[in-house]
Amino acid sequence: MDGLMMDRQLLLSRLLWRAERVFADRAVITGAPTGDERFTYARLGDRVRRLVTALREVGIGPGDRVLSLAWNSRRHLEAYFAVPCMGAVLHTGNHRLSPEQLAYTINHAGDRAVLVAPDLLGLLESVRDRLHTVEAVLVLGEVPAGCGWENVYAYDDLVGRSVPARELPEFPETTAAALCYTSGTTGDPKGVLYSHRSTVLHALALCAAGSAAIGPDERILLATPMSHVNAWGVPYAAALAGATLILPGTHPRPEDLLRLIQDHGASTAVAAVTVGTMMRRAWEAAGGVPDLTALQRLWLGGSAPSAAEIEWWARTVDVRVVNGWGMTETSPMATFSSAATRPDELLDPGVLDVQARQGRPLPLVEMRIVAADGTELPWDGQSSGELEVTAPWVASAYLDRPDPDSHRDGRLRTGDVAVFHPDGTMQVKDRTKDLVKSGGEWISSVELENALLGHPDVEDAVVVAVPDPTWVERPVACVVAAGNVTGDDLRFHLAERFPRFWVPDTVLFVDTIPRTSVGKLDKKRVRAELGITDDTAPVTS
Amino acid sequence: MDGLMMDRQLLLSRLLWRAERVFADRAVITGAPTGDERFTYARLGDRVRRLVTALREVGIGPGDRVLSLAWNSRRHLEAYFAVPCMGAVLHTGNHRLSPEQLAYTINHAGDRAVLVAPDLLGLLESVRDRLHTVEAVLVLGEVPAGCGWENVYAYDDLVGRSVPARELPEFPETTAAALCYTSGTTGDPKGVLYSHRSTVLHALALCAAGSAAIGPDERILLATPMSHVNAWGVPYAAALAGATLILPGTHPRPEDLLRLIQDHGASTAVAAVTVGTMMRRAWEAAGGVPDLTALQRLWLGGSAPSAAEIEWWARTVDVRVVNGWGMTETSPMATFSSAATRPDELLDPGVLDVQARQGRPLPLVEMRIVAADGTELPWDGQSSGELEVTAPWVASAYLDRPDPDSHRDGRLRTGDVAVFHPDGTMQVKDRTKDLVKSGGEWISSVELENALLGHPDVEDAVVVAVPDPTWVERPVACVVAAGNVTGDDLRFHLAERFPRFWVPDTVLFVDTIPRTSVGKLDKKRVRAELGITDDTAPVTS
Repeated sequence: MDGLMMDRQLLLSRLLWRAERVFADRAVITGAPTGDERFTYARLGDRVRRLVTALREVGIGPGDRVLSLAWNSRRHLEAYFAVPCMGAVLHTGNHRLSPEQLAYTINHAGDRAVLVAPDLLGLLESVRDRLHTVEAVLVLGEVPAGCGWENVYAYDDLVGRSVPARELPEFPETTAAALCYTSGTTGDPKGVLYSHRSTVLHALALCAAGSAAIGPDERILLATPMSHVNAWGVPYAAALAGATLILPGTHPRPEDLLRLIQDHGASTAVAAVTVGTMMRRAWEAAGGVPDLTALQRLWLGGSAPSAAEIEWWARTVDVRVVNGWGMTETSPMATFSSAATRPDELLDPGVLDVQARQGRPLPLVEMRIVAADGTELPWDGQSSGELEVTAPWVASAYLDRPDPDSHRDGRLRTGDVAVFHPDGTMQVKDRTKDLVKSGGEWISSVELENALLGHPDVEDAVVVAVPDPTWVERPVACVVAAGNVTGDDLRFHLAERFPRFWVPDTVLFVDTIPRTSVGKLDKKRVRAELGITDDTAPVTS
Repeated sequence: MDGLMMDRQLLLSRLLWRAERVFADRAVITGAPTGDERFTYARLGDRVRRLVTALREVGIGPGDRVLSLAWNSRRHLEAYFAVPCMGAVLHTGNHRLSPEQLAYTINHAGDRAVLVAPDLLGLLESVRDRLHTVEAVLVLGEVPAGCGWENVYAYDDLVGRSVPARELPEFPETTAAALCYTSGTTGDPKGVLYSHRSTVLHALALCAAGSAAIGPDERILLATPMSHVNAWGVPYAAALAGATLILPGTHPRPEDLLRLIQDHGASTAVAAVTVGTMMRRAWEAAGGVPDLTALQRLWLGGSAPSAAEIEWWARTVDVRVVNGWGMTETSPMATFSSAATRPDELLDPGVLDVQARQGRPLPLVEMRIVAADGTELPWDGQSSGELEVTAPWVASAYLDRPDPDSHRDGRLRTGDVAVFHPDGTMQVKDRTKDLVKSGGEWISSVELENALLGHPDVEDAVVVAVPDPTWVERPVACVVAAGNVTGDDLRFHLAERFPRFWVPDTVLFVDTIPRTSVGKLDKKRVRAELGITDDTAPVTS
């Protein structure tokens, strides 16, 4: 027996309606060296509806893929709504990929049109000969003379002369809305195809008071790239909530981000852990300016922020660091730490310890941890196992690429090793493939890295496994020093915190630690630089 | 082209999972004169799973309707989850209906089993001969000797000896979950059939930071009856959010509610406007006890709280009154006022004025106001028209009762007259059928009532239209006085605030004003008592 409720589909056009009608005068601000641009949601709605018409005019229709190669800007936000709302699919391209990977993803997606920032046009041109499907290029600015594409348009001209689409089409909520590629360090990137339903539900879950609590009074500096997993879903959640969005524009430096927080009174900033660290250093280097009084929350993601980082923000500038867990395959947010903890409470080590965890499963997300044989493990704060997840916004498969190992009994196998505490909070311990197996025991490289980052003289750190004739594997630490420190100092620092067999025999001092295009530790390259081939690295899961 | 996301259905069992697993140690408290009962969500989950088995044993299966006649209690909450989670439909019966209406709704629903509180068994017995479908009766307490039903069970015995259902069934999210009847003052009650999808989305929208903002740190005294429109969806939202629920138990008096707020540190209380007024009076009569320090929010619904009421709570006990708009057909919440306004800010008349409105459309709710000819009106704070609404949790039809006038172009016609302000907030002006048409102009009875309630010597007030040979209709006020006041005093009070033709020619002083079973002004009875038949009352919409 079915309920008698309206068959109202969960479409991104519902979010747009709320932004442009209910929060018509709220702002989207885009940073620029020549003066920041302020745009209302009402104007954004008008532009989105014009872009729908413009895309139709250049031949884009339902189901077509449209690539964006762009910074965090109001124009990119227009594409975030217009492309899915017309029934097409927005493929947010990552300009930090190698040209080979970029060409691969464009061809794999079959992108028919590209929205490209002027300064990224060169990158697109560099792979032009390899592209098979691109028919139209819209430049988000001036079209340079001698631009060699056949169908090239100046975005503002095209959008400006188009008539706003008054009615946006209705279609099933399962329709594809956006496409992101994983930034995996092995093999070709894999495509994750989000639906309207998954994106709307994810946005709504981010607005929940117990998760990211995005509401209409929030002013959000979005420093995480819109080219990376839909900027963690924040643009959609902000529009749904009526929050003010502050987009940093072209190639922002840490000091630009700090300036935007001050000038526009950002209450929340959203950034990768590494960017958070850069902002902290820039603020310290500038002698404690600009003014960060308005800032209440710093949402750090991409990897787990260290307790030392969380404590610094609480103690020095009265900011609570929040974080969560997710991956491209989970839209990305699947857990979130409490936004309610006050910064002064974080100076209590017990509270800090809980806040440094990855938080609780979001509403509608179900999780479990399992042993290697697939049996479920208890939430006792002790048992660690591979994290498995289900939710309406978790991938069921990759685009045109079967992967028989990605799921088990309908649940996504995340490859992350986690512990659940009895209070429902989850703590990521490691990637299964980054665990170090030594003498029959597991060593968590992530915990060693976090402890090293907690040392005042350590700027960056990574721990990888190296083959060992006696112990199968042993951990090796690579450290970027920030002061006068020796390997033995750091080994002693770790020996105070972990079992003796966890302490790396070797600490290598390096100038820099390789990271992936989205700022994660690139352990594959670290191992390669240490002369460890993937063949010699044993499978640990 | 479909997205590649998990086809995870929006079922109430997802909410139960989150409550029992992620918030296992959070409490459900039920008030009782013999000592309040504290129950964890983990135990609640176990009981729900036992009740699923128990219901199956008494012959209930998917699609069957199960009636509850019960107070706000932990056992009623068990039914809120177990009945829908097994695929059956919970019909929450209203024990304040007349026996005729109660029998009508039970037969119309085809209820096969009844969960009944011991003190409401007599009501059920009184209509027994008229019931055609009831096969099993579960008494939520002792079964009285001589209870004449054939299949009668002591609920706790039955549930206690049943094995918990470890796996709850999966089925389409469009499946019916709950059934409520409208409390309309004309004609037979009409059945609204909610689905799992509508109930889950409604709960998630209530958790949004910009709406009711129900989160895990909230401690909610739920004084609005669970027998009335799913207690405004709060039980489901609380379980989803991990909020502590405080249920007042059997027949609570205003002083019981105040005691529960104090004893359990309720941060939010949820009640009908009339109950809020009774709580205020009980608190004043007791000389300002008990201690309401923990209380931060009072959510008043059922009708619009007056500015005077909102101001009292802010000024006297530092509590912000929040409110929204909805009806049985909208699950019920469709708008909600900001929860972020601080009580001290409410002492500013401009802020108070905004807070007394019904707030903004919830996420996924779309609204418009239309003139009598159906043309859309602007959101200018001036134009008033009939409110039309769409959302995934709005009724598409009534159960087994076609009503060709209920919808227009797929939108629910609410029968309420409203204004939208440019900031996206909505203000209900009147029911279309309660507007007074005088000399070709409209007079809002609701605005007159609110102004009368703002007078210190008025305890209750209602305004209705009476036929007038000159002006077609004229407003008449019926007032329950709280002090020494004359009709001319009140007419002068109104004349200061409204156009002269709005001021009622007649003010009648009465002992009490009739209300419906759910506490709304019963204007039909008022008109009858004034000798105005429905035939003579002109159609005003």
